Amino acid sequence: MPLSKSKEKYIRSLHLKKNRDQNSNFIAEGEKLAKEILSAPHIQIESILAQKGWITNNSHLINGLDGRVEIVNVAELKLISQLTTPNQVLIVAKQLSPSIKEKIVASDWSLYLDRIQDPGNMGTILRIADWFGIKHVFCSPDSVELYNSKVIQASMGAFLRVNVIAIDFQHIKQQFPDLPVLATVVDKGTSVFHYQAVQHGIIIMGNESQGISNELLNQATHQITIPSQGGSGMESLNVAVATGIICGTLRNPILGI
Amino acid sequence: MPLSKSKEKYIRSLHLKKNRDQNSNFIAEGEKLAKEILSAPHIQIESILAQKGWITNNSHLINGLDGRVEIVNVAELKLISQLTTPNQVLIVAKQLSPSIKEKIVASDWSLYLDRIQDPGNMGTILRIADWFGIKHVFCSPDSVELYNSKVIQASMGAFLRVNVIAIDFQHIKQQFPDLPVLATVVDKGTSVFHYQAVQHGIIIMGNESQGISNELLNQATHQITIPSQGGSGMESLNVAVATGIICGTLRNPILGI
Repeated sequence: MPLSKSKEKYIRSLHLKKNRDQNSNFIAEGEKLAKEILSAPHIQIESILAQKGWITNNSHLINGLDGRVEIVNVAELKLISQLTTPNQVLIVAKQLSPSIKEKIVASDWSLYLDRIQDPGNMGTILRIADWFGIKHVFCSPDSVELYNSKVIQASMGAFLRVNVIAIDFQHIKQQFPDLPVLATVVDKGTSVFHYQAVQHGIIIMGNESQGISNELLNQATHQITIPSQGGSGMESLNVAVATGIICGTLRNPILGI
Repeated sequence: MPLSKSKEKYIRSLHLKKNRDQNSNFIAEGEKLAKEILSAPHIQIESILAQKGWITNNSHLINGLDGRVEIVNVAELKLISQLTTPNQVLIVAKQLSPSIKEKIVASDWSLYLDRIQDPGNMGTILRIADWFGIKHVFCSPDSVELYNSKVIQASMGAFLRVNVIAIDFQHIKQQFPDLPVLATVVDKGTSVFHYQAVQHGIIIMGNESQGISNELLNQATHQITIPSQGGSGMESLNVAVATGIICGTLRNPILGI
């Protein structure tokens, strides 16, 4: 049965944030991501639109979801896809509503992303958090949306394992008033390589071009930096790379952290 | 005087690698990059095509280059630009021919990029090398080309300070037969956080999806990895992020390296 016009229209409408928010769902595409999502224990699947070959090969993943699976051909997949090269399967799933795990936030590292705008950076940062076992990534409400298709695709499923929560910093501060807050800055602050003052807290990473807002900077208990060993006149590191170095270093067992 | 058709055609031809190679030049765009290039001591400028306002404001940068400066309007800049939003100035400059500084390679860290394909990753890796004072970034000849416009734009001028050299690994091995060679791998190898065996050498980073080729792996004297602290089933880290963590960690003064 060909894909109905109304279904096509509905899925295309989910390319826009306002419609995703209204339906509380999102789109994920491609074999790898589909496998991750269908193996995740806590995610609700709305529909699976896939080519016949994919359905045949992945029957174990879609057990019990029969009513929600629809066969589409390449041309139909192209109509509803957000990728330039659509890849076998598109899933519509319900947005997650992760809660804050208080004990983990109080005793481990978490990230707070202040106005990160680039979807690739956001997705890459989620992979870094996932890799280093950082369970909470808080984002300022004006950061790029988690369910932006480029974030979902770049995160490679990390959003399934990391609690990504859009929240004003004030609310975290109210809930955890004594938590150390480390602002990552350029050209000042303590070198992260010498940083052993605290073993847990919130690490703030700032906007790609503007860094951390003054309002947040004022609330930091510590400022850290990644010292440069090159000459002068350099651009700062990309924010995802900086996040990787900070997380890797603070997780470094040699530092005893 | 309007931009001539022949000049327009010539600059557009440089969007292709074969024409850049034939003319041994490349295109760099935007105010920031223009400033870096025009301040670099060792780069030959072929032409500067800029809006009138930029020329007025940057007369100090183009001293002595009068014959090579041409005023273009927004529409003309759009015709020759590779950016979706062209930005005031486009420079055509001669490709660099960096030589290998033997003493530095023999005593410091260098990078070898094995078939890195994504221009954004390549540019970001050059910024990391620049940041951590790593002077040589060797690339396998089948890596993305340095003068690809996306690499140039993503590197933010780092290519002016780092020696980027496309070269077969064999040639490096012949020139530096005793140099330690560290292959960065996933799921095996020594943790980079515990790595203190050597203080200099070549760090190999592999292709985005395939990692390091077996041929190169066989020539490594050490294998290093970034241990994951999350659960199983994770995607590996993005190669630029991994490069940032490796370089940051090996430059970490606490490790005494």
